Amino acid sequence: MPHNPVEKTPVTILGLGAMGTALARAWLAAGHPLTVWNRTPARAAALAAEGARVADTAAEAVAANTLTVVCLLDDASVGEVLAGTDLTGRDLVNLTTGTPAQARARAEWARARGARYLDGGIMAVPPIIGVPETGGYVFYSGPRELFDRHRATLGVPAGTTYVGEDPGFAALHDVALLSAMYGMFAGVAHAFALISKEDIDPAALAPLLADWLAAMAPAVHQTADRLRSGDYTKGVVSSLAMQVAGTPTFLSTAEQQGVSPELLAPYFELIRRRLAEGGGEEDVTGVIDLLVR
Amino acid sequence: MPHNPVEKTPVTILGLGAMGTALARAWLAAGHPLTVWNRTPARAAALAAEGARVADTAAEAVAANTLTVVCLLDDASVGEVLAGTDLTGRDLVNLTTGTPAQARARAEWARARGARYLDGGIMAVPPIIGVPETGGYVFYSGPRELFDRHRATLGVPAGTTYVGEDPGFAALHDVALLSAMYGMFAGVAHAFALISKEDIDPAALAPLLADWLAAMAPAVHQTADRLRSGDYTKGVVSSLAMQVAGTPTFLSTAEQQGVSPELLAPYFELIRRRLAEGGGEEDVTGVIDLLVR
Repeated sequence: MPHNPVEKTPVTILGLGAMGTALARAWLAAGHPLTVWNRTPARAAALAAEGARVADTAAEAVAANTLTVVCLLDDASVGEVLAGTDLTGRDLVNLTTGTPAQARARAEWARARGARYLDGGIMAVPPIIGVPETGGYVFYSGPRELFDRHRATLGVPAGTTYVGEDPGFAALHDVALLSAMYGMFAGVAHAFALISKEDIDPAALAPLLADWLAAMAPAVHQTADRLRSGDYTKGVVSSLAMQVAGTPTFLSTAEQQGVSPELLAPYFELIRRRLAEGGGEEDVTGVIDLLVR
Repeated sequence: MPHNPVEKTPVTILGLGAMGTALARAWLAAGHPLTVWNRTPARAAALAAEGARVADTAAEAVAANTLTVVCLLDDASVGEVLAGTDLTGRDLVNLTTGTPAQARARAEWARARGARYLDGGIMAVPPIIGVPETGGYVFYSGPRELFDRHRATLGVPAGTTYVGEDPGFAALHDVALLSAMYGMFAGVAHAFALISKEDIDPAALAPLLADWLAAMAPAVHQTADRLRSGDYTKGVVSSLAMQVAGTPTFLSTAEQQGVSPELLAPYFELIRRRLAEGGGEEDVTGVIDLLVR
């Protein structure tokens, strides 16, 4: 039994996929009264044994508590599951993955139905939910006072990072960070491919790669400073001209090692284009301008 | 004056660009007797004032000391500068940027002329040469005993990381790490582009990006483990199927924000292809196999 059930905010969770289940377990473990609903009831049954109340319908689950957390497959599922549910006076926290535009439209939709709405973007995988020392967290955006009201409760499964009133900002920050990560993964894939035919242990390359990437990641602060000032040339150490001059070494090495340059070539093409447009004394920040239409 | 000139290995440097000059200053500061040569003599004159001996020709510079460090524009310059120079009994350390194949050919070329040869790949920019706490270092490959003999001297301007007897391995490691870095920079460019039309300060996104990338970089260890075992499915948390299912959110967000997907799309295309080939329960390691011809 929870130690002080009356002091803990009751939570409803709609959606018990891997993430919804992990969230549910974190709130249960922290003693929050929990109502759950899932389209297929098997996962809810397991949580019932751990102390959750299982609602027969999404409408019943939403009616049970002021705070409802939604963690479904996609935005369309959110619309379907909540259709016909009375949202008047409810606080809806939508952790379903989606785009900024979907979050903004869903916020309008919720407001029209009398609900307060926060959108969230989860920067964690289910196994690290409820394990604060892993550093996993959730971006939140929407009304600041609504976030503040539920901050402690929302902070139970993972850290919280509030990024603004615009309901689309949580999704935008989520997508921005994950996009950057996929770029890094693409570079890492290219690096491992380069050594694949050599007598080099991937486990020997890994710590060199991890340390190098961690050492280069703080370069984003310089990029931000340049974007703010609009001056991409001040204090540049490796000029775009020098970097473009170095690209044949990278492309030749890929060719020698039998590795397709397809993950690297698009970036090199952009720095070449920026150089051709006169950015030779800049660093690589100008690539960002070339991406924006 | 150097404190104990007789105890410090004398060094010859060919090439006084930004990097060669930084190396020269580091050795001078540490009290190594230094002989320098540069095609255009202006930079050498500045170093002469700091205690370097300036040779009139590359041949004279090489003749002055057993250990010669070469830091020129490219591999072709190395061949030109050392043509007609007696290399018999010399220890040649080539820090000129190049491909693994160029390093291997240059090692053969040096051996045929009676020289011992180490190749190096510099993981640092000139301003951090001679500042050990910055963590800059140089990859070395070639004969282990030759590296060991000069290890202390080579360790003066930057850290040293020996990566094998194959003279091409230093360049290969250098290119692998820098390629991974460019992938990360591409992802970062996409991330900043996504927020460029929003009321979001790049300097607010930067620490989130830096922390996230640093937190994700250690995933390379898992990738290495999977490559070694050949099992890309064991313990997978975010399956390829789930990740491919997430790509429309990334691409739609890019479109909504007016950002070209050209830096992200090639990676998404590869994970889609791997999924189509049956890798749905794997993580993203299989992308590496798709890159190798």
